[in-house]
Amino acid sequence: MKHDNPPLLMIPGPVFMHPRIYEAFSRPLIGHRTPEFEEFFEETINMFKKLIQTKNEVFLLTGSSTSAMDSAIANVVSPGDKVLNVVQGKFSERWLELTKAYGGESIVLNIEWGKAVRGEDIARSLEKNKDIKFITICHNETSTGILNPAEEIGKVAREYDKILIVDGVTSVGGDYVYPDKWNFDILAGGSQKCVGIPPGLGMIMVGPRAWEIIESRKFIPSYYLNLLKYREDHMPFTPSIPHIYALHESLLMIEEEGFENRVKRHRIMGKATREGIKAIGLDLFADEKFASNTVTAVSYPNSIKDEEFRKAIQDKGVLIAGGQGKIKGKIFRIAHMNVVTEREILVTLSLIELALSQLGFLKNLGKGVKAADEIFFKNKK
Amino acid sequence: MKHDNPPLLMIPGPVFMHPRIYEAFSRPLIGHRTPEFEEFFEETINMFKKLIQTKNEVFLLTGSSTSAMDSAIANVVSPGDKVLNVVQGKFSERWLELTKAYGGESIVLNIEWGKAVRGEDIARSLEKNKDIKFITICHNETSTGILNPAEEIGKVAREYDKILIVDGVTSVGGDYVYPDKWNFDILAGGSQKCVGIPPGLGMIMVGPRAWEIIESRKFIPSYYLNLLKYREDHMPFTPSIPHIYALHESLLMIEEEGFENRVKRHRIMGKATREGIKAIGLDLFADEKFASNTVTAVSYPNSIKDEEFRKAIQDKGVLIAGGQGKIKGKIFRIAHMNVVTEREILVTLSLIELALSQLGFLKNLGKGVKAADEIFFKNKK
Repeated sequence: MKHDNPPLLMIPGPVFMHPRIYEAFSRPLIGHRTPEFEEFFEETINMFKKLIQTKNEVFLLTGSSTSAMDSAIANVVSPGDKVLNVVQGKFSERWLELTKAYGGESIVLNIEWGKAVRGEDIARSLEKNKDIKFITICHNETSTGILNPAEEIGKVAREYDKILIVDGVTSVGGDYVYPDKWNFDILAGGSQKCVGIPPGLGMIMVGPRAWEIIESRKFIPSYYLNLLKYREDHMPFTPSIPHIYALHESLLMIEEEGFENRVKRHRIMGKATREGIKAIGLDLFADEKFASNTVTAVSYPNSIKDEEFRKAIQDKGVLIAGGQGKIKGKIFRIAHMNVVTEREILVTLSLIELALSQLGFLKNLGKGVKAADEIFFKNKK
Repeated sequence: MKHDNPPLLMIPGPVFMHPRIYEAFSRPLIGHRTPEFEEFFEETINMFKKLIQTKNEVFLLTGSSTSAMDSAIANVVSPGDKVLNVVQGKFSERWLELTKAYGGESIVLNIEWGKAVRGEDIARSLEKNKDIKFITICHNETSTGILNPAEEIGKVAREYDKILIVDGVTSVGGDYVYPDKWNFDILAGGSQKCVGIPPGLGMIMVGPRAWEIIESRKFIPSYYLNLLKYREDHMPFTPSIPHIYALHESLLMIEEEGFENRVKRHRIMGKATREGIKAIGLDLFADEKFASNTVTAVSYPNSIKDEEFRKAIQDKGVLIAGGQGKIKGKIFRIAHMNVVTEREILVTLSLIELALSQLGFLKNLGKGVKAADEIFFKNKK
């Protein structure tokens, strides 16, 4: 495999990374059991806790983001436990699969893909099934470009005294995620999205109500992902040292930028992308009132073929994503995560216009780019 | 954490890495779902299969080595299944912990730490417990410096028709490991040992007899480490792309060196280390007839304190390991894995001599270095 012309990654992970992350990733390894590294590891955890403003414990798992999601379910859901799984896309559906894998009794709340789930939807399900113990949601549904109103959902969960398990894989680091204030009991995150480092690290926050359950269980059906091991020793197994170097560096960069500024930037990038897409004449897939600030999903016009379209863009050096699950071939997705700036949004929109023109859908170029640029201009004032 | 004077890693993972691995680790990321990366991923698996001469399926798991061990047990051992766990050190003991974690009924064959387990020991246990279904062993017990006669054990396992599960974490890539020829049903490996890349990747080989069990199970108590998912899609979850780049590079380097040469080099390094240690007047902890070629464990004389001794060596820039579990404080360990050459062995022995002299144990310097050098000289003829 050649690396002489790496693509600009506008897919929802792995994302476009800053050179400082590449540098961190290639630092010399040291022993993970040295006091020096142990201190660095703790500092990294503390920086992450600060990012999500939590007083709860956070653990770093060497694994894909799914390892953190697996850990969440394996540690708290016992066979037969009733779990309300909100399903509205591929990643929220993963909670359902995990619930089944560990013998939980799943009650599915299906939400139309591209729509948000509201607190009242969840309340209705809880009223119908009084013995539900857990609720799972995906905060930012990457497959459809929806950002769910997590605070509102957290309120309902606490009101009904349910354990709320949240997938924050594509929101943490790019948008506000405040598990303590918003009543999340467990939050799972990943490394290759808005925190901007390579895939290979999962994060998990565990609150006191979740610990109560974990401590009361006779048997936790996992070893590598058993949270009691991680509580006893933050590094029960040799971690991927370069990922820790990189996470520390990325969290430092987030501090330097200022988290408020970072979220504002993500929101501007999201807004510019959406306005650009609409000006081109394409339809947003997701309900704009709940549009994700980190990924935008776009419906294909009937005449456009997914592979052909994305290949035309990729041939010019930019990688965007297709659809997943039942909307594969029907949408494409642009991620605007991590260190993405105007430049990356503008080139992506420009290539989308060129591809659509090449495929006979578009006559006049430049409308999308112009609309996006107006958003950037407005936000500079 | 500063990186201006990184230690020479003579610990059993993470190990001293070649600059080519650092380079591979910092290559630009590309999308893992691109045909280009998928091809590269398959090529990497095939190179690994070639290294261990297997026709069985091999999967790369994003996780510590323990994730591969966890996967082994979670996928085949059902609650109540009888498992013969050979325990002779910290890593073989991990199989026992895993067996219990998944509800298996463990029958422990305790072997004195520092001694090898023989085929006849295992046969005796199997005679006593006819309903044993699985046998777990650690090929190269990193905590004691023992290389078990795996071929002999494999013969017994097959003769009694048992499923043999082997931890090859610190043998694969540094010594001969031939799972097909030696009747292993499952082999777990790790990345940060003799294959010489950072921690964060587990490998697992699964043979047909293990698949039969997996396929017959109604329920596999794992999601992230469920092997059926990996068989269906080699990348069911986003892998750590840099680890794949690095593994590919390392396997390329192993091909360039020639695997026979590589094993020979490891054996010479092991022999030189042992002769050096003995010439210094220290005792090897492990039975020399079954000495590991990748890690050497040394018993402390009564007068020497573990922390003080290792600190004196670390202060001069070389990191060696202490003991683990019940032999913590009683031994130290030198790993000679991956790209280690004469130079690293000689400096390590030299610093051991200096530290022992400083601590009042040794009068005349140079005996260890000389003995090791003689081994190197002999092997150059």
